[in-house]
Amino acid sequence: MDNKENLLVVSAHAADFVWRGGGTIAKYAKYANVSLVILSYGARGESNDLWKQDGQTLENVKSIRHSEIEAAAACLGVNNIEFWDFEDYHMTITPERMDRLVRKIREVKPQSILSHGPRDAFNPDHETVSKFVFDASVLSTSNGVRIEGYPTAKQAKLFGFEPHQSEISDFKPEVIIDITETYEQKVAAMNCFKAQQHLIKYYSAKAELRGNHARRCSGNNEYKYAEAFSRFFPYVGGEFV
Amino acid sequence: MDNKENLLVVSAHAADFVWRGGGTIAKYAKYANVSLVILSYGARGESNDLWKQDGQTLENVKSIRHSEIEAAAACLGVNNIEFWDFEDYHMTITPERMDRLVRKIREVKPQSILSHGPRDAFNPDHETVSKFVFDASVLSTSNGVRIEGYPTAKQAKLFGFEPHQSEISDFKPEVIIDITETYEQKVAAMNCFKAQQHLIKYYSAKAELRGNHARRCSGNNEYKYAEAFSRFFPYVGGEFV
Amino acid sequence: MDNKENLLVVSAHAADFVWRGGGTIAKYAKYANVSLVILSYGARGESNDLWKQDGQTLENVKSIRHSEIEAAAACLGVNNIEFWDFEDYHMTITPERMDRLVRKIREVKPQSILSHGPRDAFNPDHETVSKFVFDASVLSTSNGVRIEGYPTAKQAKLFGFEPHQSEISDFKPEVIIDITETYEQKVAAMNCFKAQQHLIKYYSAKAELRGNHARRCSGNNEYKYAEAFSRFFPYVGGEFV
Amino acid sequence: MDNKENLLVVSAHAADFVWRGGGTIAKYAKYANVSLVILSYGARGESNDLWKQDGQTLENVKSIRHSEIEAAAACLGVNNIEFWDFEDYHMTITPERMDRLVRKIREVKPQSILSHGPRDAFNPDHETVSKFVFDASVLSTSNGVRIEGYPTAKQAKLFGFEPHQSEISDFKPEVIIDITETYEQKVAAMNCFKAQQHLIKYYSAKAELRGNHARRCSGNNEYKYAEAFSRFFPYVGGEFV
Amino acid sequence: MDNKENLLVVSAHAADFVWRGGGTIAKYAKYANVSLVILSYGARGESNDLWKQDGQTLENVKSIRHSEIEAAAACLGVNNIEFWDFEDYHMTITPERMDRLVRKIREVKPQSILSHGPRDAFNPDHETVSKFVFDASVLSTSNGVRIEGYPTAKQAKLFGFEPHQSEISDFKPEVIIDITETYEQKVAAMNCFKAQQHLIKYYSAKAELRGNHARRCSGNNEYKYAEAFSRFFPYVGGEFV
Amino acid sequence: MDNKENLLVVSAHAADFVWRGGGTIAKYAKYANVSLVILSYGARGESNDLWKQDGQTLENVKSIRHSEIEAAAACLGVNNIEFWDFEDYHMTITPERMDRLVRKIREVKPQSILSHGPRDAFNPDHETVSKFVFDASVLSTSNGVRIEGYPTAKQAKLFGFEPHQSEISDFKPEVIIDITETYEQKVAAMNCFKAQQHLIKYYSAKAELRGNHARRCSGNNEYKYAEAFSRFFPYVGGEFV
Repeated sequence: MDNKENLLVVSAHAADFVWRGGGTIAKYAKYANVSLVILSYGARGESNDLWKQDGQTLENVKSIRHSEIEAAAACLGVNNIEFWDFEDYHMTITPERMDRLVRKIREVKPQSILSHGPRDAFNPDHETVSKFVFDASVLSTSNGVRIEGYPTAKQAKLFGFEPHQSEISDFKPEVIIDITETYEQKVAAMNCFKAQQHLIKYYSAKAELRGNHARRCSGNNEYKYAEAFSRFFPYVGGEFV
Repeated sequence: MDNKENLLVVSAHAADFVWRGGGTIAKYAKYANVSLVILSYGARGESNDLWKQDGQTLENVKSIRHSEIEAAAACLGVNNIEFWDFEDYHMTITPERMDRLVRKIREVKPQSILSHGPRDAFNPDHETVSKFVFDASVLSTSNGVRIEGYPTAKQAKLFGFEPHQSEISDFKPEVIIDITETYEQKVAAMNCFKAQQHLIKYYSAKAELRGNHARRCSGNNEYKYAEAFSRFFPYVGGEFV
Repeated sequence: MDNKENLLVVSAHAADFVWRGGGTIAKYAKYANVSLVILSYGARGESNDLWKQDGQTLENVKSIRHSEIEAAAACLGVNNIEFWDFEDYHMTITPERMDRLVRKIREVKPQSILSHGPRDAFNPDHETVSKFVFDASVLSTSNGVRIEGYPTAKQAKLFGFEPHQSEISDFKPEVIIDITETYEQKVAAMNCFKAQQHLIKYYSAKAELRGNHARRCSGNNEYKYAEAFSRFFPYVGGEFV
Repeated sequence: MDNKENLLVVSAHAADFVWRGGGTIAKYAKYANVSLVILSYGARGESNDLWKQDGQTLENVKSIRHSEIEAAAACLGVNNIEFWDFEDYHMTITPERMDRLVRKIREVKPQSILSHGPRDAFNPDHETVSKFVFDASVLSTSNGVRIEGYPTAKQAKLFGFEPHQSEISDFKPEVIIDITETYEQKVAAMNCFKAQQHLIKYYSAKAELRGNHARRCSGNNEYKYAEAFSRFFPYVGGEFV
Repeated sequence: MDNKENLLVVSAHAADFVWRGGGTIAKYAKYANVSLVILSYGARGESNDLWKQDGQTLENVKSIRHSEIEAAAACLGVNNIEFWDFEDYHMTITPERMDRLVRKIREVKPQSILSHGPRDAFNPDHETVSKFVFDASVLSTSNGVRIEGYPTAKQAKLFGFEPHQSEISDFKPEVIIDITETYEQKVAAMNCFKAQQHLIKYYSAKAELRGNHARRCSGNNEYKYAEAFSRFFPYVGGEFV
Repeated sequence: MDNKENLLVVSAHAADFVWRGGGTIAKYAKYANVSLVILSYGARGESNDLWKQDGQTLENVKSIRHSEIEAAAACLGVNNIEFWDFEDYHMTITPERMDRLVRKIREVKPQSILSHGPRDAFNPDHETVSKFVFDASVLSTSNGVRIEGYPTAKQAKLFGFEPHQSEISDFKPEVIIDITETYEQKVAAMNCFKAQQHLIKYYSAKAELRGNHARRCSGNNEYKYAEAFSRFFPYVGGEFV
């Protein structure tokens, strides 16, 4: 790996990273090292349409999702992907899984981690993963959490995806990222999940709305499409941004 | 004026800008145009010690405060100051005052405005000024608010000072600015207000605490002293910061 | 007036009632008495494009807005409109204006009032009107607030429009109204405000998103488009709804 | 089962459903199918008085509670009861228990579920059950959560009981149900728990207070007694209620 | 005046101090100096029943309220009362009124001030008075707010009445005062307002509920009746209370 | 044990009780029975500096921490200490651990318990312990939670330590304790943890800031140093404090 910035993306289910952060991830993929961890295939909770097929099996659902993810990631320019194959709905976190993520963070050494925010109405797994990622990021910096061969990492900045129903999930858009230049890539990636046309339409509309907010908050009319995120702790730096 | 960035600072009382933002203002003064508006001398609400003197008069209090402010601003490298001489405790906002601030914003064309945040326990004037500045910033962008010779400004980013008692004022440190390089200037500026030794001690301790938070949130151990601010609306930009 | 239900709509500026409640108002117009009060023409705060024209005058802006409102209201099936012609940006509430609205409420005897919710980032007038309407609704029920010829009204239910940027305005969608059957009317009404194409696009996308939420929260897939509102106090009734 | 509406009530301990929802349940029992699940007998956490008896045993406590519940449910007109006999204080949720409740929801196909709200000061079990019921309701709608013989249910509306100390449990009365017509039934049901006279008095007073609120919020003076509930997600429908 | 503690009570309308704080005030009246300021007679907003009488006049309403207040205060053991006769619904605060209250605070030198809390749904006057009292208490301590003959006071502790509908007013019971010993006095005082039987019943039920909470939070079973209050800023002292 | 008041302190890691409550504990140690439970040595999460030493072992880290705690407790006048030696980072709570703490509370019979508050950014263990202590305190009062030889305790008051970064942990200083008279003891206790000089500096500065707040909120200028705490439920008593 070279001197580029490192971004770690942790997605609870197969397609979360596309709907909620695809445009931003595509921007990072151009100049940074993007590492993507897919915790589950979302076979139980987010594959409703696939299960409508007679004789459907869990293995087949996972296999379809696997292909879709690889295709979608390719659209975004990401090829560093791990599939951890946790069961979803409900996802549970064991000490071994915690260790595994701590090790991953120490390996990637991310400046920023992108994952789920603390609240997500109608999606308990996302809340579980949010705490999982935050806790792992804290443990990754602690010298007393000894993992042979993996010295501590510096505290990464943490950003949270916008949940599907933002307001009832107490989501505040603290960071709005302009995705005008990668919006077409995001649309292509969303189209890898053909069975979910309603979500493609939904997240296209969302990108327009956030683009409108980006223009209003900044006065910059070049922003056409945007994605919103929460942040887990304050911005620290040398000047107002 | 040249191509540099413009920062507008609006201080409700004489010394607010020093205690709560002196280090950050000093940094901006090095490379940006800093315009400082002092709305009142704080003669009624923030000059307790001066009034202990027998035969003290309002004019004399204002005159002392005027000199102190000029000296403190000089320590921070700021010389573009206006004194609007509003009465304080309670400060009231009239339509004329609103027009005046709208005009000032359109004249300065600030990328960022620094003033008081929306809540400040024990200081009703600060809350009045917070709304005053926010409303004026919105009006300054509206084409229908016609002021001869002052075309509309772009929406400025707004940042709020940390109030004296942060938690009971519902303050969240959303932006923490490293002031290590200008901390000595801030100390010098604070010392221009000699009668208020307890505040000098207080804000020195605060700068250390915020420095500690800056290190913990960023993993960057070069941050020694810092100031914290709230922001009025989301960060918008091209990448995570 | 007959036995039908009465809905009073109070719009701070010319077009607020269309963007934020047009579909719902059109539904009510079919079977209820809808009374519409337009407090201001939004000449200063919400007519940016009109002011780009050379030699534009206040009277001309108001006249254009007046025609647009009448056309839009007609699209929604509403013809009971009053224009109170308050100045906007900033709107101020005097005792006379309070009396006037109390009298209006007592005259209309609304079961429901639809107006602005308590918070609206970037729009101070909306917050002023929200309090104005709420306070007037309380006064309208008090026997000691004597207005010759206008006996007290029963407490109306109050609903708040969704603000433009919902999350940073602390908006929670407490009531989601299906507008599938009147969506085309809303689109037609929005198109009466030709200069504001970006808002037409924005509120079309919003109606889709709220339709998605309506489906998810209810399991009813016939909901295509929806509008969201806040409510000022609890639902009271005979069963769960 | 016929075409009537289905209400599922999930009570953490023996008597929760009586104190907090008895009047409303009695109303539903008149025209809807009410299914009642009693998760525990509350033997450890809510049977203080029974344990004051010398030589008291767990089995005896459960047996007394069992009889009391059946008697109280009969007063409310409910006879469809299941006792799941979980240990209380602390109640724990296993994957098997989650499956069982998902299956129950798919069997009952409730339009509404009534259980505990998310926060309840001094009662950790209630918070556990709130999350348990919410999560199960989400899983019950997901096609990928396969249970042989139990196809998915539509998303039920969820309502939360008022906790004992409402304000410090962050409870907001979002839905107030008039129970004037069934209040006597509720009093009779409460009197089945003879050892808890102080609670009978407490919840009688509460019904009066909520009746007062119902009158004030609606202007309807026929409401004498009421019960308050929270709701887990927005109302969705065709008009303001 | 002797060495006893001073309590200042500021009541927006005629009877607020009785319903919401009568038991506590009666306790203070036994050993402290209680000063009571009645800002208005509540003639417009809180005298509904009196206005049902034909030919009722404002002067007559005020006169009746005046007598009732004096009788009620006597029941509580309070005889130091001032009637400021502000108009209510809406009450407005002028600079003169602010000066008057600052002067009153400096004259009384209260250790504690009891008045309305910051939020009160359905009662805008109470919110106005809450801010009025808080601001005046701050000004009363400031040396620069010069009032001939009235030197500054020490910062008083501020406590807020429980609003009528606590939860939708965001009220938290931070201080619960046992009023068992003065409950009968409170009942007597409430009965001085004969036309408001529903409120007597309401606040009697409330006192029982708060008594229950007092027992649960403290483990002290001698508390029969209680009143709840909010506090405006933290407890400061030498030990946990 | 005599008639003195009992204070139970539960510290998640080795030194938490010193940084966050040392001054207050020292005051109680003078006139009350103080029982201290150290749940873990903080070997994994709060011993960064010790692990910088080559060949460091877990046993050695624990041994050093053990000595430091005993020395620090002695500085505060506390000698009743238990070390429960849980693993930290992450700490987990089992039913056995819950029973153990319930038994401990029933043995100590504390009027007050001091432990961690519900939120602590960057420290998941503290949040776990907060819930652990609260739940155990509730169970300790329940007659049905049978532990041979340990009859129920009365509900203790619960107080929460100030977390390291107060605002982003949603901490509100509800109780501020003056520690002027024991501040030197606290400094001595802090100096027992020599490797953590930056924390000694941090918590000294904090004590000054809280002293300033104590003076401002009370008007009492004798308060030099203070510690802030949250409380878990309302104050109950006979008068305003």
